[in-house]
Parts: sequence; structure tokens; C-alpha cells
Amino acid sequence: MLPTIAWKNGMVVMVDQRFLPLKEKYLTLKTVEQVARAIENMVIRGAPAIGIAAAYGLTLGVQHLRPGVDIDKEFSRFYQRLWQTRPTARNLFWALERMKKVFEANRSQGLPAVKKILLSEARAIEKEDLEINKKIGQYGQKLIPDGATILTHCNAGALATAGYGTALGVIRAAFARKKKIKVLADETRPFLQGARLTVWELVRDRIPVTLITDNMAGWLMQRGEISLVIVGADRIARNGDTANKIGTYSLAVLAKEHRIPFYVAAPLSTFDFNLSTGKNIPVEERNPDEVRKAGHQFITLPEVPVKNPAFDITPGRLISAIITERGIIEKPYAGKLRSSYP
Amino acid sequence: MLPTIAWKNGMVVMVDQRFLPLKEKYLTLKTVEQVARAIENMVIRGAPAIGIAAAYGLTLGVQHLRPGVDIDKEFSRFYQRLWQTRPTARNLFWALERMKKVFEANRSQGLPAVKKILLSEARAIEKEDLEINKKIGQYGQKLIPDGATILTHCNAGALATAGYGTALGVIRAAFARKKKIKVLADETRPFLQGARLTVWELVRDRIPVTLITDNMAGWLMQRGEISLVIVGADRIARNGDTANKIGTYSLAVLAKEHRIPFYVAAPLSTFDFNLSTGKNIPVEERNPDEVRKAGHQFITLPEVPVKNPAFDITPGRLISAIITERGIIEKPYAGKLRSSYP
Repeated sequence: MLPTIAWKNGMVVMVDQRFLPLKEKYLTLKTVEQVARAIENMVIRGAPAIGIAAAYGLTLGVQHLRPGVDIDKEFSRFYQRLWQTRPTARNLFWALERMKKVFEANRSQGLPAVKKILLSEARAIEKEDLEINKKIGQYGQKLIPDGATILTHCNAGALATAGYGTALGVIRAAFARKKKIKVLADETRPFLQGARLTVWELVRDRIPVTLITDNMAGWLMQRGEISLVIVGADRIARNGDTANKIGTYSLAVLAKEHRIPFYVAAPLSTFDFNLSTGKNIPVEERNPDEVRKAGHQFITLPEVPVKNPAFDITPGRLISAIITERGIIEKPYAGKLRSSYP
Repeated sequence: MLPTIAWKNGMVVMVDQRFLPLKEKYLTLKTVEQVARAIENMVIRGAPAIGIAAAYGLTLGVQHLRPGVDIDKEFSRFYQRLWQTRPTARNLFWALERMKKVFEANRSQGLPAVKKILLSEARAIEKEDLEINKKIGQYGQKLIPDGATILTHCNAGALATAGYGTALGVIRAAFARKKKIKVLADETRPFLQGARLTVWELVRDRIPVTLITDNMAGWLMQRGEISLVIVGADRIARNGDTANKIGTYSLAVLAKEHRIPFYVAAPLSTFDFNLSTGKNIPVEERNPDEVRKAGHQFITLPEVPVKNPAFDITPGRLISAIITERGIIEKPYAGKLRSSYP
């Protein structure tokens, strides 16, 4: 299993995803601020992994509180800091809210008990995420025909979750059932999660993978070289509108044009049941230097204006099915996606 | 005017486009082989510029022939070498065929005369290309509304031609008429012609330009932030099917989905009147390391399999109009695109 994030001796350890696959470097984080910056700077990324990191971040802050401190005030400070790290992925807020509920329910037991209970809750979030991914994989692999060539975008793999992955979990499950599949990985500019992380994961698992640039998918579809598309998600509204890594929407339009199935794989913690459509999902605009650089090197004039939306929103009508830990939901989604689902 | 290519003291001088915009480095080429490699390695690129480079390359070879040599044999060797440099851009073959005709018509006048005549023909090809671009600009700017935000892909600018550019020529002409326009430049992986060359050209001309990654166009179209798309071409068949830089086809599909005009700007030397459709246009597959690297740096596992088609083919039905030096041709193209056109 890949070491996305772990709690170790009262500290949070994560692989620095900015340097993969060329360097495998681990960071040991000791403060809430360090975890918050790791999320902001994309040391760790991927909606479920961000949620787990936030849960451990809160735990870390509380672990180091000394007797006599105002725990409510401190908890609230940690919570706010982590809440503000990234705006789009639903799992971040979901995990923080879940931790807060547990904090509030057990607050009266005193600091030593709260420390234990929060750590145990963060560990549960991590453990459950792994189990959820396995379930998503089991359901989702039914949608993968033997012999399929599967296009995926960004990294919805072990590195984006507690392990196994959502979209890559489906691919792993299909591969484990001996289906003869091939994966095309979009490099996913500007941060290159496809070229760096998806390629690395699939090569390690010996799943056949071919790297392409983001602008090649249309041409390969025109030539009949792609059987289906599967991606993860950062936030899903009740009508199926899905925020995911920039470029996802273009792939969904191209898939429709070529009558190719387009699937989203995500845990229920990615769903925002408060939103009836994707219209109000906040789309993060990141540092322009991410676009001005590739890897760690400038590729253009350092002062050129840039747009850098990190996500886009794909209308539910372009998504053939959404795969969750409770099964496959086919479009149309209206009325099917409720917090009481299924 | 930008110094794409020039004949100087019996040598061919070109800016090395692989290093722009971070380094402005000039190469002085003295042999046919050097010119052939400069084309293959994309020191110079862009269909019209490749044609000019090939014409000068032939000239260079013939200039250095000594009396008594078998000029037919030598000419044929030079011609074959240049012919094999790149397969897709029509202008390469057009320029070589034009030079060959002149060679054959004047062959009997002897080597000194042939040297002069070929140099004069290559210079004419260069000079005409510049005039053609200005005409394309004059016609094409009529299609650009005041206030438009224009998406362009790759570099169809001064650096892809003798100067001024095709798609960027249209943009320059609209800007010269004081239309308030903004340009979005796709970075154009893997070779980054947009981020490196288009950005550089437009910043020099003070035309407002914003850089985006290739996977952002769909999202910006969905948000109504793109008025039209204009690109160059490498080869155009009689039905309007157009080979152009990889990613062009995806943009055309996205433009259709969002009802945004999609224009191609190209000289008649880019048309292949022998081809009724784009089906038989050869699409070059380039070195996988172009995809494994960004700039001059590996971004992924150095051994991962890669696809690297340098071009794709956009069906004529997705192209709203083609702008040539003889005017604007609107779809459908069947019957309109003939060698006797207009």
C-alpha cells in the first residue's frame, strides 16, 4: 500500500507529492500550521486525502494542548485554520465537521479523554476511506469491459485517498479480476498529477499505463482508441454536477461527442447535499506560477498574466454514472442523490 | 519584425525556437544537413516557416556545389533529405516542389545561373509569405468583433511564417485597427509553442495576452469567457479537413458544444488539393521524451510509455470559416477548395 499519510508517534507523516515520482521524500509534521500549509501547497492533495489530513491536523493540535488551556478556543482556532486551506474539495469540510461533532460530544470528559477520542476518530476516517475505496472498486469494475482502454485525468489514486483510490481503485479492481485493460493517463497540467502520480502508482502495480498530454484525448477518441473515461471528484451536487480537476469538463464534452461512457468515482463524503446544482461550488484560483512553470522551471515570460482555475464543473447530464461505496448511480441524478441515499 | 529565418552572406540564420522566450539564441547554418536537422528538431517550426527553411536549405546546398559536380544528382539528394524531415505540413512539400520546378526549368543555364535563380526563388517564397500573411490579416480581422476574447492554440505567428503570422496575423490586424481584443494563449503541450512563442510575440507587440493550460479552454467556454477560436494549419484537404497541432480538434469540438466560431487561417500553400478528405494526411509521431519532459526536465518516470502525435485532424464541418490570402471561405467547403480557387 502506498504511504499517502500516517499518524506516527504523535506526528503526521506524509510523502511530499510535489516531488514524486523523481524523489520520494517524507515530511514529518508537528503542528496544525504545518499540516495546513501542506494542504495549501499540495504536499498532499486529492479530496479524500485532504479530509484525512485535516482530521489528523486537528488531532495534532489537540494532542499538544497543555492542561489549563482554553480547549474550545484552541480547537476553534485549529478548525478555522484548516477550514481555510482549500475551498473546493467537499471532503475537507466533511472531515472537519465530523471531528467537531465528536469533539463537542466528548468535550466534557476533559482533555486527556478528548485527545484519545479525536485520534481514534481521525484513524477511523482514514481506515473507513480505505474500505470505501475497495467497495467503490468492487462496484465500479463491473463497468469496465475486458480489453478496455481507460482514460483517467489527474490522480484519483492511492495518493489522493487513504489508499487504493477511487477512479484508480476501480481500475485496480478490474485489473485484479484479470481483465485485460490499458490505462491512458492525462498528464494534467499545471501540477502534473497524472504524469507524476498516476503514472507512478500504475507502474508500481504493473498495470499497463501510457502517458499523454491533456490535449491528445480528443484525437485518440476520434480514432477509437479510448473505451471509457473515469475520474474522481472534489465535490458533487445533488443533480450530479461535479467539481473535479481542471480539464475534466473538456473530457466529458469530448466523451459525449464520441459516445464514450464518462464515469465519476467518489465516496459519499465528496457529496455536498446542501447544493442542488454545481453553480455555487467555489472554484479555487491558484498561484499563476504553477502555469508559468512546469516542474520547477519557468517555461514562459515570468510576468505574463495567467488564469489558473484548479477545478472545473462538469454538468451531471454529461456523467454516465457515479460510483460510490453504496453502488452505481446512473443518470439522471435528480432525486437520487440525497443525504439519506440510498 | 521578428527574425524567424534569413539568408545572410550565403548562410541561413534562424532563431532557435527551442529556447525562446527565455534565451534568444541564433543559429547560422551552412549545410543542407544542418537545415534538415533544424527542421526535424524544431529549431524552426510552423508550416509556412518550414517551407521557407526547406527552400533556403536547397539553395544552400546548391550554392556550395563546385563546378564539374553532377548537379542533378546533388539537387536530388538535397531534395530527398529535406523532403523527409517532417511528414505533415503541406508547405514543406509545396516549397520543395516549387523550387524543383524552377531548378528544372533553368537547369540548362549552368551552375552559376542556377545558383542565382534558386536563391532568388527562395527569397520570393519568403517575401510572398509575408505579403500573404498581411492579406490573411486584412481579410480575417473582419471576423473579429470589437471586444472579443480570442483563443489561439500553438503558435501561428511571425515565428511560424516569414513574419506577421496567419492566426496571429489576423489578431495583429484586428489590434492595428484599434479593436479592443484580448488573447488567450493555450500553452500547447508538449512543445509549449503557446507558452513560449505566442506569449513572447504578443507581449512584444503589447497585445493583451493571458496564458492558460490546454485543459482550461472548455471551462472558460462554459463560463462565456471565450468569443472565438482561431488557429493556423499544417495541411488542409479539399473538404476543409485540417491537420494542425495536437489539441486543435478538441478545441473545435468544445467550440461546437458552446456555439463559438472556430476559424482556421492559412495560406493556399497549406492546401493539399490532391486530398479529398483529411483521412490520408500523415500524422507525425514524435520522440516520447517530448512528453516525458517539460522544458528540458523530466516530469515523469523516464521509461513510461508515451503517445506523442504532433498533430490531429479537425473535420471541415467543425470549422466555421477558413481565411486565406484570397478571402474568407465559409463552410461547407466541398467544391470550393480547388487548386483553381477562387
